[in-house]
Amino acid sequence: MGEFDVIARYFHRTKDLKRAAPAIEQVALGIGDDCALLSPRAGMQLAVSSDMLVEGRHFFKDVSPEALGHKALAVNLSDLAACGAQPVAFTLALALPQIDAAWLSGFASGMFALADTHGCQLMGGDTTRGPLNICITVIGQVPSGQALLRSGASAGDDVYVSGTLGDARLALDALQGKVQISDDVLQRTRQRLERPMPRVALGMALRGVATAAIDVSDGLLGDLAHVLHASGCGAEIDIEIVANCSILASENHGFTALYCQQLTAAGGDDYELVFTAPVAARALVAQAALNSATKVTRVGSITATSGLVLRDASGAEVAQSFASFDHFKV
Amino acid sequence: MGEFDVIARYFHRTKDLKRAAPAIEQVALGIGDDCALLSPRAGMQLAVSSDMLVEGRHFFKDVSPEALGHKALAVNLSDLAACGAQPVAFTLALALPQIDAAWLSGFASGMFALADTHGCQLMGGDTTRGPLNICITVIGQVPSGQALLRSGASAGDDVYVSGTLGDARLALDALQGKVQISDDVLQRTRQRLERPMPRVALGMALRGVATAAIDVSDGLLGDLAHVLHASGCGAEIDIEIVANCSILASENHGFTALYCQQLTAAGGDDYELVFTAPVAARALVAQAALNSATKVTRVGSITATSGLVLRDASGAEVAQSFASFDHFKV
Repeated sequence: MGEFDVIARYFHRTKDLKRAAPAIEQVALGIGDDCALLSPRAGMQLAVSSDMLVEGRHFFKDVSPEALGHKALAVNLSDLAACGAQPVAFTLALALPQIDAAWLSGFASGMFALADTHGCQLMGGDTTRGPLNICITVIGQVPSGQALLRSGASAGDDVYVSGTLGDARLALDALQGKVQISDDVLQRTRQRLERPMPRVALGMALRGVATAAIDVSDGLLGDLAHVLHASGCGAEIDIEIVANCSILASENHGFTALYCQQLTAAGGDDYELVFTAPVAARALVAQAALNSATKVTRVGSITATSGLVLRDASGAEVAQSFASFDHFKV
Repeated sequence: MGEFDVIARYFHRTKDLKRAAPAIEQVALGIGDDCALLSPRAGMQLAVSSDMLVEGRHFFKDVSPEALGHKALAVNLSDLAACGAQPVAFTLALALPQIDAAWLSGFASGMFALADTHGCQLMGGDTTRGPLNICITVIGQVPSGQALLRSGASAGDDVYVSGTLGDARLALDALQGKVQISDDVLQRTRQRLERPMPRVALGMALRGVATAAIDVSDGLLGDLAHVLHASGCGAEIDIEIVANCSILASENHGFTALYCQQLTAAGGDDYELVFTAPVAARALVAQAALNSATKVTRVGSITATSGLVLRDASGAEVAQSFASFDHFKV
């Protein structure tokens, strides 16, 4: 099987494509020419992001291909979510060590299932032989001037995080033999590691409400630090509230408090949103959370003084610092 | 050095960026947030293409990093050229086995030199550790409905090719020890292999003139076959005219006629355009070639009967067939 056969068989869905708005309105020409053609809507800016996934660094060799197809697109959609953009279309570039029909079929089904959920169309790409590498570039749309940026936080703003944190990292630690957990806990946390759900609906609901946002891919505190740097401010975060943002929060699995803090504050691979909003907008944030059916937790506030201060429930400063995930350093 | 340092040091050009139209007008937000933001011009469609380059398959381990930076962007710009689109911006995703300052600096300088030539801005991307892999996604603009497609060729149209063919493949064959050539010839042909010049100006000049176009990356006949398939027609090509489309055409290097035909008709890595236009548009094609300072050669014509027929200078049919380059099969 050659390059063109791979595309035709696994990625070219002329017949069964469940095209949805906005893709149906905007992808004027999909797979099969030198370029795809997109007809942007008037008044919209396009949000563009690329992520590259490498075996052994972003996923294990034995991960299910469906999960990998899902995650490769999910991490890109998460970047759109962080900007409040609605997914429109994406390109897929794929280096494969060999043509493995079962793998390709699984990968495509996981990827397309998530793409269809968001009305986002595969519009083009490239395949080649090489060490397994998946590069997706996603394009979304957002009304001009309404994108959520990292740079808009102001002193006094609340800091929020969506969903749960640390569960993906717990699964990773368990799979790497660094911690022992029960099969039941592994199954639940592994779902968060392998099939993260990008917070697209929440990001869109936060347009005009949040002042700044970023997605949590390298760990809450590390990603929040990017917001603080871009906004020229600091933050105070309640580390005990953060430590409770886990799907295991109400259960006792015998982990130390410090390990729970490490997982949730700096675990990585969460694909949640951390965002800021004025105190006066608390009702609007609650409404956005409700409208997008997404849990949102207020974890601290923005300060004029630069730096990230962690406090416990009593308000006392916690000296602990947490390193976030870097795809070169780790 | 971590992921963010690599981006900041080698790819984030806030200060020295020679931004040119159309990037300056349209890239509302570049590197440094979750997404880049693009503000498309009214009446324009966006042309999008991704290419992934893998060591050992698309380039040699010892290729100069400047040349590689140039070529990684050039092959993408060539896809825009084939659609008649003007480059606007691109993303770069890079997997690197290690942080090599000299390599990164060279790669960035080759890439940015070509980007600046075309007013095309690096707007975002990703870096990670992994087997060397370069994935660029380029976005261009073309007035709505004016993109050159593969599907527009009609019986009777002329078939043209730009520039020269086969030289890149000759250099590749020589570097792989398959053929012996002088240092002088290697130097000239290697330039074509390592620093192809995408035919962006010609592609734009052919809007409203050419009926179909594709860029020649896998070999003239193989890529022309995609046009024929998409357009539902055939072609007759003068193989001797094609064999003369080499920078070595007027010189005698002792190659057999068949080898010259193989190089030019099916060599690959040419990054020229093959396109069709009505006979009545010959003067317009000549004008487009002149305006874009690009040599254009008429090599045959489109037929209603499907299939690709090769003829010699006397008009006799040539039985020879040529396999084109496939990144999985070769």
